[in-house]
Amino acid sequence: MTDGKSLLIFLLHVTVISTVDSKKNILLIIADDAGFESQIYNNTVCKTPNLNRLAQRSVIFQKAFTSVSSCSPSRSSILTGLPQHQNGMYGLQHGVHHFHSFDGVKSLPLILRQSGIRTGIIGKKHVAPESVYPFDFERTEMNNSINQVGRNITHIKLLVREFLTQKDDRPFFLYIGFHDPHRCGHTSPQFGPFCEKYGNGQAGMGVIPDWTPVKYDPDQVIVPPFVQDTPAARQDIAAQYTTISRMDQGIGLIMKELTSAGFGDNTLVIYSSDNGIPFPNGRTNLYDSGMTEPMLVSSPHHSRRWGQVSEAMVSLTDIVPTTLDWYGLQYPNYSIFHHKERTQLTGQSLLPVMEAEPIKGWDTVYASHNLHEVTMYYPMRVIRNRNYKLIHNINYKMPFPIDQDFYVSPSFQDLLNRTRVGKDTHWFKSLKQYYYRAEWELYNIVNDPRELHNLAKDPQTSSVFKEMRHQLSWWQNQTADPWICAPHGVLEDSGHYQSAPQCLSLDNGL
Amino acid sequence: MTDGKSLLIFLLHVTVISTVDSKKNILLIIADDAGFESQIYNNTVCKTPNLNRLAQRSVIFQKAFTSVSSCSPSRSSILTGLPQHQNGMYGLQHGVHHFHSFDGVKSLPLILRQSGIRTGIIGKKHVAPESVYPFDFERTEMNNSINQVGRNITHIKLLVREFLTQKDDRPFFLYIGFHDPHRCGHTSPQFGPFCEKYGNGQAGMGVIPDWTPVKYDPDQVIVPPFVQDTPAARQDIAAQYTTISRMDQGIGLIMKELTSAGFGDNTLVIYSSDNGIPFPNGRTNLYDSGMTEPMLVSSPHHSRRWGQVSEAMVSLTDIVPTTLDWYGLQYPNYSIFHHKERTQLTGQSLLPVMEAEPIKGWDTVYASHNLHEVTMYYPMRVIRNRNYKLIHNINYKMPFPIDQDFYVSPSFQDLLNRTRVGKDTHWFKSLKQYYYRAEWELYNIVNDPRELHNLAKDPQTSSVFKEMRHQLSWWQNQTADPWICAPHGVLEDSGHYQSAPQCLSLDNGL
Repeated sequence: MTDGKSLLIFLLHVTVISTVDSKKNILLIIADDAGFESQIYNNTVCKTPNLNRLAQRSVIFQKAFTSVSSCSPSRSSILTGLPQHQNGMYGLQHGVHHFHSFDGVKSLPLILRQSGIRTGIIGKKHVAPESVYPFDFERTEMNNSINQVGRNITHIKLLVREFLTQKDDRPFFLYIGFHDPHRCGHTSPQFGPFCEKYGNGQAGMGVIPDWTPVKYDPDQVIVPPFVQDTPAARQDIAAQYTTISRMDQGIGLIMKELTSAGFGDNTLVIYSSDNGIPFPNGRTNLYDSGMTEPMLVSSPHHSRRWGQVSEAMVSLTDIVPTTLDWYGLQYPNYSIFHHKERTQLTGQSLLPVMEAEPIKGWDTVYASHNLHEVTMYYPMRVIRNRNYKLIHNINYKMPFPIDQDFYVSPSFQDLLNRTRVGKDTHWFKSLKQYYYRAEWELYNIVNDPRELHNLAKDPQTSSVFKEMRHQLSWWQNQTADPWICAPHGVLEDSGHYQSAPQCLSLDNGL
Repeated sequence: MTDGKSLLIFLLHVTVISTVDSKKNILLIIADDAGFESQIYNNTVCKTPNLNRLAQRSVIFQKAFTSVSSCSPSRSSILTGLPQHQNGMYGLQHGVHHFHSFDGVKSLPLILRQSGIRTGIIGKKHVAPESVYPFDFERTEMNNSINQVGRNITHIKLLVREFLTQKDDRPFFLYIGFHDPHRCGHTSPQFGPFCEKYGNGQAGMGVIPDWTPVKYDPDQVIVPPFVQDTPAARQDIAAQYTTISRMDQGIGLIMKELTSAGFGDNTLVIYSSDNGIPFPNGRTNLYDSGMTEPMLVSSPHHSRRWGQVSEAMVSLTDIVPTTLDWYGLQYPNYSIFHHKERTQLTGQSLLPVMEAEPIKGWDTVYASHNLHEVTMYYPMRVIRNRNYKLIHNINYKMPFPIDQDFYVSPSFQDLLNRTRVGKDTHWFKSLKQYYYRAEWELYNIVNDPRELHNLAKDPQTSSVFKEMRHQLSWWQNQTADPWICAPHGVLEDSGHYQSAPQCLSLDNGL
């Protein structure tokens, strides 16, 4: 590199840094498998006073959606703004699953670091490789006990304090990945199905000093419409509530740290969850029960809308453009792979919605799923607007897969056992229906919110089907989806087809 | 670490190095998609004088098998001795496929480096990550043009010379990954379907100085029994032969370099291929047409068996134990994942077979497949003995997938087009049969070498089926197969099940 070039790049670098307002920070809080168990979303039983307080200073999104209902893929999409099929995190990151984003992906921590913003992550990370997701400050399962950094709210509080009191003038981006209210009966059954006993002071459970455990009466819990109303499921939900209340108290502690450190008035706070709740029809599904998420966006600069709800349809892939917009940064212009199209974000900044409820737009979201555990291949592609949802199940001839964690859960065991002995499951569908799905599912989400009446072959909705399929295909193309031709064709995009990629038919009789 | 411990470890390290015979080297040559197109295997048309010459100093294996018929997975299993489902390379390494072996895997280059053996790789690597597969000398597609390092035999010759003449007293392990005779019509159609024009002196094709192109008459080629005998397929095979002949000339150049450098008498030379030929029923299949491989093992110390054939059933997973045995090294005692069982090799050293044809044993091999391209999920598990083969197709309700490269090949296009217009395909099965497979396939490989008559449900072979299924399950357990319970159950191996993992039924009606 010549000296002239060095100088130019140095100047450009200085320019980029100087555009960042040093008083603008972000605190992103992502719950693990949480849903709408909060007063904010009309659940009057589960106690979440701290979320309620945050909601009073937030726009409360009623129509927020994850772009994939699986932990690592969702977190990768939160941090890259790209769907899992585009960033390469096709399934879980840990152990034998071993999915990683592509080396060429430019994630939020990478872009922010290069723009002079200090980044931190506390709690659950669950994305890789490190070179794609490098945080300046990291206390996660990669270098700590996940329960300590993700569920011990006292420990989390102290880590947040450590980060916030570091002597550093740069603006910050702090990501808190609660491990609550994730199940833990699968790996640590001694702590209860949702780790609701972990640190509650009982013998062998340890003590989390800042936590006042809240117990719930199974008879009082609110059973979501997609879960069977049985004693087993109610007990399961009660345990989940206890864990949500722990997280809620943790959020209270974090917000207090933020204020004490003097960042209360210049920090954008975002709260959401990675995927659906780990109950039947929830996590790993792209029915609304697996795809809708709680979402609060609290901006100190937009107090006019505090406490208001928004009906804008938003996606977790909007977090990257929102963050960039907040800091006044541009999305980098690059390709993930050589000779491929430049990567573009399909999400949008939420900041305009913080100003005023949008009059038009914000009425379509997309989602995609490939795997969760590596043995659970079930690619789906989804488009949802205000009235309809279209799902393309690519591996539809095989049963919908069940994960290790969910399999041993009291709620699923209850369904399985009831089905085995021919007892009423009290569920809104049969296990067989759940396992076997049509290649295409089209639902009128307004009239049929439980997504039971498939209209994909209904002549009355054939134009809806056609139009949505076309839009879905457009999005798959925009997001460089390797599955764009599956399962009927092969994508040819090199050699003769390099300039004009095509889906060529397999004539496989599907 | 205390000084006492440091010293002990230092002494152990010295001991390990001193046991390695500095005059024992290995040259491993792996062809890309090659089969039995050689006089050695009774093909009198395809000219391979250099392979023939090598065979005169080798044991010629008649029953060698790959453990997976896909490029990256096979190469990972060659270099780790572990099947793809155990080392994590579940599919192709490059681009959007993005499979990697687990960070904790101890591969041959890693073990050898730590044992004081110099390692080199020239040509195709196709495995990752670098930390698991580190070679001291690397000229591969990771840092060079793949055609240059994998097909330009003059360039390969010079790289071999560079490696062999480096001033270094350590014994060496040199891995040559020819890219010939891999197809290239998919990515570089200008070079012909098999890159048979690349470097042949025609305008725009460049010149490979050491190569004397051999052209074949399509009417003269030998059509394998699993390929349709049509003009299109014959032309395709003729192109393949030209590329094989180029590789053969390359092997001649390499052997000459080895002798010139003075290593002719102390180097074990192994020749094989990664997977089946890229023709119908070949690569990506675990029928014998996709699973059997050519294999020559030439030991300067075992001249008594030179030129002899062996009927021992051997696997490419035997290359790691053979290599360790040759250098007098032990396989390290370690676990890939914390809290998991220690990793053991299921292959065996071939050196005893170099002494004498075994009287018993060597009569069972195993194979497994998960994906090739990331969209091609089709897990299979296979056991094969002298009489029978059992295949478990896990995703059997979906059609067998077709890769981008094979799809555009003249032979597959011919099959597809003939099927479309209802013309005789001259193939031994229909495309529909090829796409749709039973969950279990059991073949009497002696009476039915084309694997057409599925005996899985035949009462006469029910005890064979039961016994082989039991053995297959044993092997899956030995090799920590995440798919061991698929598709009917979920593997539970943590929490309550940690000490006694179990397959729990999904009752999914499969």
